[in-house]
Amino acid sequence: MDSCISIHDIGFVRLVDTMGDDMAVVRAARVSYGEESKGDDADQKLINFMMSHNHGTPFEHINFTFHIKCPIFVARQWFRHRIGSFNEISLRYTEYEEQIWRPDAWRMNNQINKQSSGEGNFSEKEIECLNGEYDNAMDAAVITYNGLLERGVAREQARAVLPMAAYTEFYWTVNARSLFNFLKLRMADSAQKEIQDYAIAVYELAQPVAPWAFKAWESL
Amino acid sequence: MDSCISIHDIGFVRLVDTMGDDMAVVRAARVSYGEESKGDDADQKLINFMMSHNHGTPFEHINFTFHIKCPIFVARQWFRHRIGSFNEISLRYTEYEEQIWRPDAWRMNNQINKQSSGEGNFSEKEIECLNGEYDNAMDAAVITYNGLLERGVAREQARAVLPMAAYTEFYWTVNARSLFNFLKLRMADSAQKEIQDYAIAVYELAQPVAPWAFKAWESL
Amino acid sequence: MDSCISIHDIGFVRLVDTMGDDMAVVRAARVSYGEESKGDDADQKLINFMMSHNHGTPFEHINFTFHIKCPIFVARQWFRHRIGSFNEISLRYTEYEEQIWRPDAWRMNNQINKQSSGEGNFSEKEIECLNGEYDNAMDAAVITYNGLLERGVAREQARAVLPMAAYTEFYWTVNARSLFNFLKLRMADSAQKEIQDYAIAVYELAQPVAPWAFKAWESL
Amino acid sequence: MDSCISIHDIGFVRLVDTMGDDMAVVRAARVSYGEESKGDDADQKLINFMMSHNHGTPFEHINFTFHIKCPIFVARQWFRHRIGSFNEISLRYTEYEEQIWRPDAWRMNNQINKQSSGEGNFSEKEIECLNGEYDNAMDAAVITYNGLLERGVAREQARAVLPMAAYTEFYWTVNARSLFNFLKLRMADSAQKEIQDYAIAVYELAQPVAPWAFKAWESL
Repeated sequence: MDSCISIHDIGFVRLVDTMGDDMAVVRAARVSYGEESKGDDADQKLINFMMSHNHGTPFEHINFTFHIKCPIFVARQWFRHRIGSFNEISLRYTEYEEQIWRPDAWRMNNQINKQSSGEGNFSEKEIECLNGEYDNAMDAAVITYNGLLERGVAREQARAVLPMAAYTEFYWTVNARSLFNFLKLRMADSAQKEIQDYAIAVYELAQPVAPWAFKAWESL
Repeated sequence: MDSCISIHDIGFVRLVDTMGDDMAVVRAARVSYGEESKGDDADQKLINFMMSHNHGTPFEHINFTFHIKCPIFVARQWFRHRIGSFNEISLRYTEYEEQIWRPDAWRMNNQINKQSSGEGNFSEKEIECLNGEYDNAMDAAVITYNGLLERGVAREQARAVLPMAAYTEFYWTVNARSLFNFLKLRMADSAQKEIQDYAIAVYELAQPVAPWAFKAWESL
Repeated sequence: MDSCISIHDIGFVRLVDTMGDDMAVVRAARVSYGEESKGDDADQKLINFMMSHNHGTPFEHINFTFHIKCPIFVARQWFRHRIGSFNEISLRYTEYEEQIWRPDAWRMNNQINKQSSGEGNFSEKEIECLNGEYDNAMDAAVITYNGLLERGVAREQARAVLPMAAYTEFYWTVNARSLFNFLKLRMADSAQKEIQDYAIAVYELAQPVAPWAFKAWESL
Repeated sequence: MDSCISIHDIGFVRLVDTMGDDMAVVRAARVSYGEESKGDDADQKLINFMMSHNHGTPFEHINFTFHIKCPIFVARQWFRHRIGSFNEISLRYTEYEEQIWRPDAWRMNNQINKQSSGEGNFSEKEIECLNGEYDNAMDAAVITYNGLLERGVAREQARAVLPMAAYTEFYWTVNARSLFNFLKLRMADSAQKEIQDYAIAVYELAQPVAPWAFKAWESL
């Protein structure tokens, strides 16, 4: 069960637990006691019908628990998905481990669609320079954070200086219907590349749990 | 896993599947990788703290799927609980099996609190009479229903004559936090006796899955 | 504000209150203080973009409260929509007013799609006959219900004999995003004709509140 | 309607719109057409009964839309409340205005309860020093952010260097039941002082809308 995919440098998506599979969808759709299956063909056809006719509730009987480590700016997008359960590490309570995300590739601003990234590439020299500036700023933030703590400032206030690139961790329990919605929005080209990477990992871990349901979803 | 409790005559609550247990609560509350447990005492204490301080989200990582058969008037109360997933048998689609609930004990009207039942008892003769009237009305409803179908009336219209005592079946997936809320409201004295019977069965099937969480909840 | 549409015989949909309009969508999408509008054209274009790109949250800032009177079998379908707030009259508490719905047109069973209604028509003689049987069964149910009450049976038990054709009433508060989902499913051809009639009334009352949002939704 | 309370330096809570009031609760609880009120005394008593008996749904018919400007670390706590609608300004799209929160009072770490703040006070000299370090780090973050943008880095990547003290803005639509839950958790002593300040402002703006409901809630 416990399978894990690494993302970026120290991020990850880990599948912790699941409940239900394709047969849970079939069973709920048929609400029958005893002979739940009517054979592979009929069962898969039923799943396809439910998916394509917008009958979402049977897919809510498949559930997943994930453990995720990602930068805060990714977590902020993730937590907008309200149908699901989140438990996040608290920087009010926990000793912060000084782990900061850094892009492995810098993307250019998109002149046309301002909210996404553009096509061009930075030169090697530019990349070196961007990395240097970025690292300096991140180091300064962490040094300031530790300095505030050493001077006795409350952790809940000190964390205000930490950047949105700081890593966080959380548990996420979500049903397949809500997961499909998450994947649709966060695997899309319009999503930020960083969360796309996480969404793809979520997809790869979840898909084998209910291959017919995922196939039906991908055929939409 | 597949345990079932019979209710009234032909009703039941069946536990179909679960995900998570007390350790899922501990794990989510600690968001730690690796050493999730800090020993039984510390773990149970953490669960008690979460419950008593209204930190509900860790309990959302425990999930249950139930299969329930109950009269429609009970299902109507059940479906008011929005945090959860329901799939009910449809009388638009399914052949109705003519199963009607009958009270195994008639309760007197409460003169003071009009919405609940009172204290007195009916005589044996009265009970016989009530049963007779009730059965006659139920038989008439079923006969009319079948008559309408035989004359070619659409099932979705014909079902309008069926009584709220008619049995229905559904699958219910719910997390422990929402389950506790259901049990609090439906095991209460103020709840209708019929749904109390179902709620108690739900409790008995769910409690062994997460005994510390249930103990903490019962101590509230 | 208080506008009402009659449905079937004594049913109705009444719009009780609203919050927000097209500008509430624009405002939330722009999160700007002060100059919320950028002119009619830009504003309407923004609404169309949000709708067509699946950005649903801005539409959640428009809210409606409806008061509805409908048969229980319609209410049962309605209450399946979990994103919204319901308060229903309780037959545990309230004196029942003996109001039973009767179809104004009988529909034939569909031989192919068993869950919907077919094409044919009943003869006038058949209709007379169906009405007679139906009314007799309904009368019998109401007489039995009243008989049980007179003998002192608790209201919460006696109501089990009432048919799903009995009228109920409820308040429903719902945001525009959830309303669109309701309308999509319940105005569809595949929905039961009886709830379609209600959904159309909901549409007619809600549409003038946010004409651009509705137009964008209808263009999907 | 449009009333606003300033928080900290440039933060605010603004009440944008409301729907319903105490009578909306009464109306929904009675589901009556026409004579909704039974007089002030009876109406207020009904509200108190609903609140004290955990009948939460009638309070869902009161709705509020707020516009909030707060530091990101406050918004992160706010967005954990899933029953409600959020639209936040996006730093993927919007020109960032370089507005950073700074504590107007530094709090000491609590030696016993590590997640909250302690009792002691910093000397004036210490405060000066903390402010200096904090401002330097914030300035450095903003300079780096602007530098990355000037070099052509995509906004969605550059924002990773911004601190959690950066201001954000959002619209929040929420019903009274969910609002009460928010206030209970965020006005509590255990909440971080910074979000307490916001919660108190929310309370002050919302309370006059439904004074009986708030009074009933405060009496719990």
